[in-house]
Amino acid sequence: MKNEVCHVDHKLLKSFMIDCFRASGVPEADAEVCADVLISADLRGIDSHGIGRLKPFYIDRIKAGVQQPVTQVEFVRKGPATAVIDGHAGMAMVVAKTAMQHAVDCAKKYGVGAVAVRNSTHFGMAGYYTLLAASQGCIGFACTNARPAIAPTFSVQNKLGTNPIAVAMPSDEANPFSLDCATSVAQRGKIEYYGRAGKEIPPGWVIDVEGKTRTDTLAILEDLTKSRAALTPIGGIGEEGAGYKGYGLATVVELLSAALQQGYFLSALTGFAPDGSRTPPRIGHFFLALDIESFTDLASFKKTVGDIQRELRAARLAPGHDRIYTAGEKEFIKIEERKRTGIPISPTLQKTLEGLRDEFKLTQYRFPFED
Amino acid sequence: MKNEVCHVDHKLLKSFMIDCFRASGVPEADAEVCADVLISADLRGIDSHGIGRLKPFYIDRIKAGVQQPVTQVEFVRKGPATAVIDGHAGMAMVVAKTAMQHAVDCAKKYGVGAVAVRNSTHFGMAGYYTLLAASQGCIGFACTNARPAIAPTFSVQNKLGTNPIAVAMPSDEANPFSLDCATSVAQRGKIEYYGRAGKEIPPGWVIDVEGKTRTDTLAILEDLTKSRAALTPIGGIGEEGAGYKGYGLATVVELLSAALQQGYFLSALTGFAPDGSRTPPRIGHFFLALDIESFTDLASFKKTVGDIQRELRAARLAPGHDRIYTAGEKEFIKIEERKRTGIPISPTLQKTLEGLRDEFKLTQYRFPFED
Repeated sequence: MKNEVCHVDHKLLKSFMIDCFRASGVPEADAEVCADVLISADLRGIDSHGIGRLKPFYIDRIKAGVQQPVTQVEFVRKGPATAVIDGHAGMAMVVAKTAMQHAVDCAKKYGVGAVAVRNSTHFGMAGYYTLLAASQGCIGFACTNARPAIAPTFSVQNKLGTNPIAVAMPSDEANPFSLDCATSVAQRGKIEYYGRAGKEIPPGWVIDVEGKTRTDTLAILEDLTKSRAALTPIGGIGEEGAGYKGYGLATVVELLSAALQQGYFLSALTGFAPDGSRTPPRIGHFFLALDIESFTDLASFKKTVGDIQRELRAARLAPGHDRIYTAGEKEFIKIEERKRTGIPISPTLQKTLEGLRDEFKLTQYRFPFED
Repeated sequence: MKNEVCHVDHKLLKSFMIDCFRASGVPEADAEVCADVLISADLRGIDSHGIGRLKPFYIDRIKAGVQQPVTQVEFVRKGPATAVIDGHAGMAMVVAKTAMQHAVDCAKKYGVGAVAVRNSTHFGMAGYYTLLAASQGCIGFACTNARPAIAPTFSVQNKLGTNPIAVAMPSDEANPFSLDCATSVAQRGKIEYYGRAGKEIPPGWVIDVEGKTRTDTLAILEDLTKSRAALTPIGGIGEEGAGYKGYGLATVVELLSAALQQGYFLSALTGFAPDGSRTPPRIGHFFLALDIESFTDLASFKKTVGDIQRELRAARLAPGHDRIYTAGEKEFIKIEERKRTGIPISPTLQKTLEGLRDEFKLTQYRFPFED
């Protein structure tokens, strides 16, 4: 093993993840779903939500007993076009896929469907579920709360999760419109990336207990863990850059992820009890699907989406830039690239994957970085 | 008349607006709705969306023939829980209220309802309609497109409207949760406020054709009109502050306001035809309501919303600040204040109101600023 990034075929990695999940007690069909969500993030270039999370977010938590490998999706309540699901701390990808599919099924019948989920775990990339809806002729909306990270405007304390909002809809182009963004300016994964590159982060991403922004990346990463620093909402610190808008949107996500389902929220999502013992993630999600053909014919809809995207991309360029993107476009380009080149696996992650392989005795796997 | 701000009782102003609308041909019941939307904005401190718009946004456009005083709300299509409405360039407040009420009615039956509107005009403060839903035990969502204002990330051209997102939900506190924000960092009204105060605007609010931010308020106001400058999306210029997130959210609003309803979008919303003649605003809206009791009992929901808001407000304060707000709280405080003190009317607006009074021969009105 050399100490450098190695690109590995996505099919090999997905197959490996399926086997790791199965070895941890996840039933085969569910393991396939979990692995598909993670590898989809890797393919789209969302490395923070892909195979890098396999061990710490899933395998380790199953081992610690705070996450259940056999997922029990309980429909606590069903209305004509709505449902409340309890995920019973199972595999969130399975819970979330079931929830969004139910929202889509409701939408096909009534025009719109909405599903609230409680007691779930980390469902991975939110855009996976909205794209699932878009592939079935729907507008998909998904959001989730998460462990405390963002400080409210005029506060320095991490309270709200990075609480992503995802929206996808089909267009007449090869890639659907797909927005999938945290309601913080940046996420820990991005700051870690700056850390590995030995660079300072830009001002405005983080607020410390003194109320000041910081740029000393490595110290920030430590202080974030100790709640001595917090992420800022989209719009940044204070009101001047409209940080209250990002804070408000993060709050909407928190509310949608907890209030409809009598779920947990804010400081109850640290993953630790007051005595320091681990708790289940206790995360909540919310999914909504709108059936496009209940409003207009699908072809007209797709054309308007495409027309809007094309007009945006044809807008007058800022000097120094050669291209305007629409949401989901960069990820679409990345998929094509990574299907050719493979998924970049860092030396640390290489070691983790070898460790899992050896632990689970998955002797049929040999990674290119071992050559 | 002295050249200073005068506070005027909100009931007097509302009554006056009703009579101005009626004098312009708006039927009495509709005039009441239109005036209520505008005065609600004034009461909440959203001066940009209140009585200041009476003449330029409504009375003048009715006169110019690009907006119809008698509103024809046509249900182009109805599904079980959805509808598409054509507003036929009528009074958008009437169209929007009808649309949100239909979404609420669908939600009461199916759990969720969604209504797309095309060919509408300016509906005023988006939060009016979400609060209407919240007052009926629903979560309300509303958005609208608008004339080009925001430049996409890496562009310098105004393309997207300030495209607001509004979400409201009831809580166990006196005021509902209510987020109502443009997807730009700032709006023209806010820049005009800096202009009147003789102050430079903060960097990051505006991008000019050279791709640089500007702070010279008065020149900016002129350049915004001439499309030589544009507003920035939440997150600001470029990608460093996550401007692509605000740009993405503004695009979601544009899509929801046009694609489901085969409506107009982006550059078609300037209000002017290529030959320079005025066109109807041709604005689209989208409304969604979730019936809370389809998910959980209303009291539990309200308590969770209140608990989340209370925990946020109790977060550790940033040095130099003495209070953390939750969305809608400042507006709620403002309502109490303005019910006591009246609505501040600038000298320019005083003149406008006197002009309307004289023009429409509403001789029964005498304003306190005339004394």
